[in-house]
Amino acid sequence: MNHYVISISREFGSGGRLIGKRLAARLGVPCYDRTLIQKTAEKSGLSPDFIARAEERARSRFHLSIAPIGINSPTFAHQSVPVSHQAFFAQAEVIRELADEGPCVIVGRCSDYILGPRPDCLKVFIHADLASRVERCVEEYHIPADDMERRVLQMDRGRGNYYNYYTGHTWGDMRQYDLTLDSGKIGVEGAVELIVTLAQARAVRDRLPG
Amino acid sequence: MNHYVISISREFGSGGRLIGKRLAARLGVPCYDRTLIQKTAEKSGLSPDFIARAEERARSRFHLSIAPIGINSPTFAHQSVPVSHQAFFAQAEVIRELADEGPCVIVGRCSDYILGPRPDCLKVFIHADLASRVERCVEEYHIPADDMERRVLQMDRGRGNYYNYYTGHTWGDMRQYDLTLDSGKIGVEGAVELIVTLAQARAVRDRLPG
Repeated sequence: MNHYVISISREFGSGGRLIGKRLAARLGVPCYDRTLIQKTAEKSGLSPDFIARAEERARSRFHLSIAPIGINSPTFAHQSVPVSHQAFFAQAEVIRELADEGPCVIVGRCSDYILGPRPDCLKVFIHADLASRVERCVEEYHIPADDMERRVLQMDRGRGNYYNYYTGHTWGDMRQYDLTLDSGKIGVEGAVELIVTLAQARAVRDRLPG
Repeated sequence: MNHYVISISREFGSGGRLIGKRLAARLGVPCYDRTLIQKTAEKSGLSPDFIARAEERARSRFHLSIAPIGINSPTFAHQSVPVSHQAFFAQAEVIRELADEGPCVIVGRCSDYILGPRPDCLKVFIHADLASRVERCVEEYHIPADDMERRVLQMDRGRGNYYNYYTGHTWGDMRQYDLTLDSGKIGVEGAVELIVTLAQARAVRDRLPG
């Protein structure tokens, strides 16, 4: 019943990864999140460890405001990008190939921007209030709540820096998404339900079989 | 089946008013939009014409950046607000009273912010790409397309100024909403379907009968 490549972007601790997994199971399609690192390694010859570290570095390095490179923009020149970013570009290539293979769910990794030009891409952003995100993280990572708030905000900053740099867009600008939702208000199952409804509504509009 | 007061905010030309009407019909509850002007007039003794003009003035006057007053904020003092804003305050009062009467749909008029503190308020924002909003407006208002783009953007600016001034929040910041959606991608019926799903998901979470 799913004809789409569904990209899920999310605030840290909003349950986005779990929502992606449940959604993919419900739709009977694969879900890619951190597994993309292994796939990127296989494709590029870079080690999984190098790719993971490159991602971490990119998030923290871009705390300062740097002119975004916007990899989909007409003026973007691949050769002008530092070698340190090859992990990102290899991953973008893997994301495009997976989308070509058929319907799936992809969590994070600027996939909304990388796949944005595809008409079969549905773009979702999941957020939640800070308190419920901290609560989810404390349960999941067993870290004291008082330090968790700082870490949640730090992770968000990192994701925003990474996204803004590579896309030239603003992380969390609702106009970039088909749907944004507050998982703190409706929970994981409610979020899955909403994204399934989005896919159904698009299928009706695109006149695809249900 | 609906237990909620549903507030719909929208970009100009995104079909938000029509979505509100269809949604209310589907849920069997009243829908309030420009009809609020008449109700505010009855309650306040101000003429409907005065209220409509006050709204227009507020939108255009706030093109310049003015410190927001944030009527729900702890530091807000009613008596410090100019007399020219009494139309807004009378309308806010009417919106609160209508919400007290029971489930309904309210379109625009900062209703998401005015009713935000209520646990039974669902907040939705509807946007769409500029091209499809211009197309909708040309069909609806029979104005040439070339001038329509400028007018659509001008109307959005006015709504943003009005909202930001009275609420102290940023118009269109997805974190203020339970759900935001792109009506250009799924159409009016798809949008109604998504908001109904939101209400159902919240009812499940709030353990209310379906």
